[in-house]
Formats: sequence, C-alpha cells, structure tokens
Amino acid sequence: MSKEYRVAVAGATGAVGGTMLEILAERDFPIDHLRLLASERSRGKRLRFRGEEFEVEVLSEDSFAGIDFALFSAGSARSREFAPAAVASGAIVVDNSSAFRMDPDVPLVVPEVNAHALRNHRGLIANPNCSTIPVVVVLKPLHDRFRIRRVVVSTYQSVSGTGTKAIQELRDQSWAVLEGKRPVCEIYPHQIAFNCLPHIESFNPDGYTTEEMKLQNETRKIIEDDEIRVSPTCVRVPVIVGHSASVNAEFERKVSAAEAREILATAPGVEVLDDPERSVYPMAVDAEGKDATFVGRIRGDISCEMALNLWIVSDNLRKGAALNAVQICEALNRL
Amino acid sequence: MSKEYRVAVAGATGAVGGTMLEILAERDFPIDHLRLLASERSRGKRLRFRGEEFEVEVLSEDSFAGIDFALFSAGSARSREFAPAAVASGAIVVDNSSAFRMDPDVPLVVPEVNAHALRNHRGLIANPNCSTIPVVVVLKPLHDRFRIRRVVVSTYQSVSGTGTKAIQELRDQSWAVLEGKRPVCEIYPHQIAFNCLPHIESFNPDGYTTEEMKLQNETRKIIEDDEIRVSPTCVRVPVIVGHSASVNAEFERKVSAAEAREILATAPGVEVLDDPERSVYPMAVDAEGKDATFVGRIRGDISCEMALNLWIVSDNLRKGAALNAVQICEALNRL
Repeated sequence: MSKEYRVAVAGATGAVGGTMLEILAERDFPIDHLRLLASERSRGKRLRFRGEEFEVEVLSEDSFAGIDFALFSAGSARSREFAPAAVASGAIVVDNSSAFRMDPDVPLVVPEVNAHALRNHRGLIANPNCSTIPVVVVLKPLHDRFRIRRVVVSTYQSVSGTGTKAIQELRDQSWAVLEGKRPVCEIYPHQIAFNCLPHIESFNPDGYTTEEMKLQNETRKIIEDDEIRVSPTCVRVPVIVGHSASVNAEFERKVSAAEAREILATAPGVEVLDDPERSVYPMAVDAEGKDATFVGRIRGDISCEMALNLWIVSDNLRKGAALNAVQICEALNRL
Repeated sequence: MSKEYRVAVAGATGAVGGTMLEILAERDFPIDHLRLLASERSRGKRLRFRGEEFEVEVLSEDSFAGIDFALFSAGSARSREFAPAAVASGAIVVDNSSAFRMDPDVPLVVPEVNAHALRNHRGLIANPNCSTIPVVVVLKPLHDRFRIRRVVVSTYQSVSGTGTKAIQELRDQSWAVLEGKRPVCEIYPHQIAFNCLPHIESFNPDGYTTEEMKLQNETRKIIEDDEIRVSPTCVRVPVIVGHSASVNAEFERKVSAAEAREILATAPGVEVLDDPERSVYPMAVDAEGKDATFVGRIRGDISCEMALNLWIVSDNLRKGAALNAVQICEALNRL
C-alpha cells in the first residue's frame, strides 16, 4: 500500500483554500485525514470534501499535531503567526502567502521549473505569487535555450486573486453599472467593474507596487538567475478568474517565434494556443478550471530581434496558487 | 464677425460620430450649416445638435456641395469611396478611418504634436488611431528632451472603440454571465464580458494585428522619426469607454521619473495624475467624458536606467477620435 497523508488546509474557507480542496480531491491526493482550519469567523462552518462533510476548526498553534502537510492560504500575517508552530509539530508547510518567499532558507518552488530546490527544505516551502507562476513556467524553457536578459511584463489580473469578497464586489458593481446605479467600492479603492486599476497591493516609495516587485524578485529566485531584469506593471481588470500577461522577453541569443513555439510545445505544464488567424489564443474564461499555463500570440519582437512577445494566461486560483501548492506536495512525495 | 463653417459629419449615427456632434457643440465650433450623413439604414433618423433636430441624409458623392469641413467616421471603405468626392467638392476632409493614414501625401495629425504638418494638406487630413493618439501626446514632449529609441506598449482597450453594437454586446453578455446564462457572441469572436481578448482588428501573417502595426507606423509618422522602434500588444478589455496603455519607453539619454513628471506637467493636452500612495492614477472610468490624456504611474524602469514606465489613459471616443478631429479643424482655422 502506498502511503497516505494527514493534511491540514489553513484558510480553507477562502477562494484559494476552496480550490485546494477541489484539487486535492480531483488529483486523488492520498489523504488519510483532513483538517480544515480558518479564523474564528468560520468556526463550525462545514465544507464538503469527496462527498464527506468536514467541520472547520479555528486555526491555532495546536492545530498541527500529527499533520504531514499543512497547506497555508490565510494571508501573510497568519502564516507568520502559525507556520512556525506547524513546522515545529513536524508538518511540512506549503505556504501560499508572501511571508517567507524571499527567505534564503525557504525554497520557492514551481515544480516544472525548480523541483530540485525542494531537496533542501527545512519544513517550510513557499508557493510563488499568482502572477509569477505562469510567467516562469513559460519563460524557464526559453531561458534554458536562449538565456533571458530582460522581461517587460504588463498583467491583466482577475479579482479572484484578491479573494471571494472581491468577486462579489465585481458582480455587485457590474449589476449596479448595468442598472445605471452608483457602484459601491469596499474592497478596491475605485470601481473595478468596467474599469482597469493599475494598482495591486501597496505602493513602495519608488512607485512600484509590492505585487510588481514580486514579479522581479520571485522570477529571479525561481529561475535562479539574479541577472534577469524585470520591468513589471500589474493591473487589475474586471475578470472573475484567470490572470493574463503581455510579456516581452529579451534574450542573450537571437530567437525566432518558430523556435519558441517548438520548445514550448513540449514544455511541462505549458499548452500552446497559437492560431490567431482562427481566433485561437489564450483567454481567461477558457483557462478557468484548467491546470495548464496557456501561451499564445508568440511572435518575434518587431522592435528587437533578440526578443519575443508572448500572451500568457492561467487560472490564478489553480496553477497560480492551489494547484501549484498541491503539486509541491506531490513532488515532495516523489523525492 | 469671425467666419462660420459648413460642416458635414459622415457616420453621424455611430459612437464616434455622435461624440463629434457633442464636441462640436461643447466647443462652440463656428457652424453655419450642419449636414449629418450616414448609410441607407439610418436614412431619415433624427439627431439633436444644439437643441435643434437634424435629419440624417444618406452619404453619397453629392453630399458635399458647399461643405467646408467633412468629418468622416464611417469606416475605411466609406472613406475610400466618398472622401475623394468631398475633397473634389472643395471640402477639407478630416478622416477618422485608417484608409489614408499612411499615405505620404496625407498629413496624420495630433495638433499638440505635429500641427505644423497641416500646412501641406491637399484637402485630406487623417485622424490617427484611438490607441496611438494618447501615446504620442505623452511621448512627444519626452522624445523632444530624451529621444525615444524603443517603446513596448500593452493596451487595455474599451469596446466603444469597436462601436455602439460592441457596447451593447458587452452589456448583454455581462447581464448573461451575472444571471448564469450563456453569453452570445456576435461582434467579437469570443466572450468579452469578464474576459480579455488579445485580438483587435485582424492578424497579419507575422502574428501582429493591423491594430498593433498602427501603433508602430502612426507613432513614427506623427513624431516624424522612423527610427523609433515599437513593440505593440493590443488587448480588448471589458471596459465601456476609455483606453488604457502600459507603456515602457526607452530613451537615448538617461531619464528620471522626476524629470518626466516635470516635463509632462506642462505638456499640452496632458494631465498628470500621479500620487499612487493616495490611489491617484489614471483610470478609464475617470477619463470618460474628459478631453485630456491622463498619465500616471510614472516611474524609472528598474530593469533599464534609460527607460520609464507610464500608465496612459484617455477617452477613446474623444481625444482618441472625435475631439482630435475637431481640434484638427480648429488648428486649420488658425493657420
């Protein structure tokens, strides 16, 4: 009999937590015992997993006794507070927050890109940001062949990246606008329905957001090349699920769209959707619910022969968060 | 008494045509006689202008007798068919279609940037594309000081750029999605509600769209520098009015965000909205109905010290189309 694991999900009632449960079930992750954890607010709430009801318990330092894998997606503050206790209890923590991502002692892993970094973990593994994961999944195989020098990225990020309340806000505001009423803004500082906000997370003094800096810092750490330069602009768009990105990647060596397409056709985790004359290209609504990172509009940069333009889309709740976390657990099981 | 003009608007029932009428009224353009022209379908329709009703006439070669200014926004085919007749009748044509933009005998004008090009017109002046105009309004003053080498642009374009039917399609599809129904696609090849389409106009064999190539070709012609390299990605987003663009501009000389902000603060037609820590940046919903081109998120490119990142937004029906056309007429009147 193959081993089964005791798994805890911290933040089980959130958008990513819910997707983690779906993915654990879909992939038949070998679970012997499941513990669902959330804040005081969700105490006693019941969630279904594989047809069975589970009661949500309050996340505490004592939640992790006997747990093998603790999947955290309850925000950075909760991760900082409780992940060390989970590790001390003997669990392996896969943390979806940004709390530990840049800690040199913590592997930051996208299994298709740097599964080898898992070998040196000390009980805590960080799951990268939802806008970074699809970009590195697509860029790594190109980097291996042509070596990336600089990436200019503009994102089109869906509201589910903010959470379930943001999904509701987009829906409510959309109704309001369609009915000619004034939309109410609670989660975002401005109307998100029928609008674009060049603002995700908070601003640093240099004018970049913390979200944008993740794209630079996490890309370098995951691809293991600190010379990669990244110029990021992160934008929230009125999409429910699915992050898109317009990526201009400049390489050390001359590159063609045909070569890139050939490499990406067999790249792990990547699906090429690139027949634009038949209106085939990646889109958020098609990526929703899928595991792959989709890439299309692959074309040589008409402004620079060492560069390519790419359009990359993935389900931010799945590959951008929950799926990648579960894949990390699966990769650990194979070690 | 200052001169008054006889003005014809071809495509008066469209989204841009309607905005042309609004702007002619708002700016008190000296109109002595107004003629509204459209296709057979709109024959007899009545539109209001300055409180008066005007009957729409069918656009024909005979529509332009006695007309001083003919503003065309009825599509390239109509412009090709009828603009020469208008010019032959003695009218000055300002054409919002792409039909004549790259014709070396036709000035392509954004008055803040290259009004001087109007001096050599032969009766026909082209109005640039809605995604090009705001970009050149912002880049020209920076080009004058630092000289642009390369621009990487990713756009976030609203459906009103396609026309009134596309606005209705976005509204109808949004209702459908919110009500859990299947959205119907007629104008766009895929769902635009709660989605992003990396597809505007049609694809060339090299994978770029005709919309994207306009950004390169028109930018070079308007700024009058064929060495400017442009790497464009044009994306349709579920926004009703207002085009946004994430622009990475690389210059010949080192440039700082502070210098750029200072130059743009006094640039004609530009309004700087750049206090991100207070959530102040340009947005489509704020730009709607305004004349300025808004720029914010002005920051030095962390991947290249010769480059800046900018977020540029304007009302695509106004400065992106109708307003610029009327401003061309005003500039001609001042010649």
